[in-house]
Amino acid sequence: MSRIITIGREFGSGGRELARYLAEILGYAYYDREIISEIAKRTSLSEKYIQNVAEHKPVIPFPIHTGRTFWAVIPDYGQNVQQEQHAIIREMAAKSDCVIVGRGADYILRDEKPYRIFVYSDSEDKMRRCRENLSDDYAKGAEMTDKELARRIEQINASRAEYYEFYTGQKWGDKSNYDLCINTSACHDLKKIAQAVASMF
Amino acid sequence: MSRIITIGREFGSGGRELARYLAEILGYAYYDREIISEIAKRTSLSEKYIQNVAEHKPVIPFPIHTGRTFWAVIPDYGQNVQQEQHAIIREMAAKSDCVIVGRGADYILRDEKPYRIFVYSDSEDKMRRCRENLSDDYAKGAEMTDKELARRIEQINASRAEYYEFYTGQKWGDKSNYDLCINTSACHDLKKIAQAVASMF
Repeated sequence: MSRIITIGREFGSGGRELARYLAEILGYAYYDREIISEIAKRTSLSEKYIQNVAEHKPVIPFPIHTGRTFWAVIPDYGQNVQQEQHAIIREMAAKSDCVIVGRGADYILRDEKPYRIFVYSDSEDKMRRCRENLSDDYAKGAEMTDKELARRIEQINASRAEYYEFYTGQKWGDKSNYDLCINTSACHDLKKIAQAVASMF
Repeated sequence: MSRIITIGREFGSGGRELARYLAEILGYAYYDREIISEIAKRTSLSEKYIQNVAEHKPVIPFPIHTGRTFWAVIPDYGQNVQQEQHAIIREMAAKSDCVIVGRGADYILRDEKPYRIFVYSDSEDKMRRCRENLSDDYAKGAEMTDKELARRIEQINASRAEYYEFYTGQKWGDKSNYDLCINTSACHDLKKIAQAVASMF
């Protein structure tokens, strides 16, 4: 059975970078946006469109308590992209040892007993990382005031929490759902943290 | 300035053992019950009595909203033991690099920026550890049914949470108050975890 590490992370915490170092050190496969690319290949939908659908909980046009079934009110493509995403995550996890970032993989793969990491940090550090990491699609930090950037980070993390809770029924970032929760504000050297974590495998 | 590691831990999670390994590997001083012994020396009260006072939040004989001041309703010795405990923790932390277990040391020493660890585990593992570790004052696990033991563990952890919240105003075990939260159910080899953590120092 492959060894699976899943990494949930607050936006701006450096979780993705930490995940990449960890995969490199251990020689494990690394899956993050690769999952989106694979769905795009299989469905011939655009990556941007898939990312939007695959990373957000569906918008429900009217309340569930009308008596109609839940899925009936969600556009089909949303469900299909999610199903495709789940299938791909399971395939990737079965193929080899791997590190998977986000996408509720800890829950999807719960029967395979992955090692579940959550990465978080203080607000100031999230701001700093966003400013430093302007290549990131979301951040565009240089054009934002501190207040705008803080609000943007908060929104992205709220959306991740919503997505996770919608698909897993669990609380995002609640330590009881993870095996290790790392605050990157206490140690900015992500490679050092990755090396420490890797030494347990 | 000394390097300080504080370890909060659920009863039965193996946190104390992990703390001891960590101190050994790093060559740091280790403080846990040593703090109680030191208070006993200074106050000439019995260790058992001090432990009871130092590890529980005070019982308030009547509600605070009567208009009398808060401390006025708490027996003086409780306050003194707490003050003594705070003073000793600060002295110990100033003396040399150290690992301090429990007692809200993460909060007491917050200005010294300690590395704050919280150790937790699944209920079944807490039960197992208590059964294995019968020398522990609290456990007396062999004489208890599973249900009784589970209830006892829950009570002890509720009391730790109450104590912590009373003296710090923070939520015990909430990851935002810690730099690393370790679930020992995912890796039973505490020495291995301690080595991994030590490698970050």
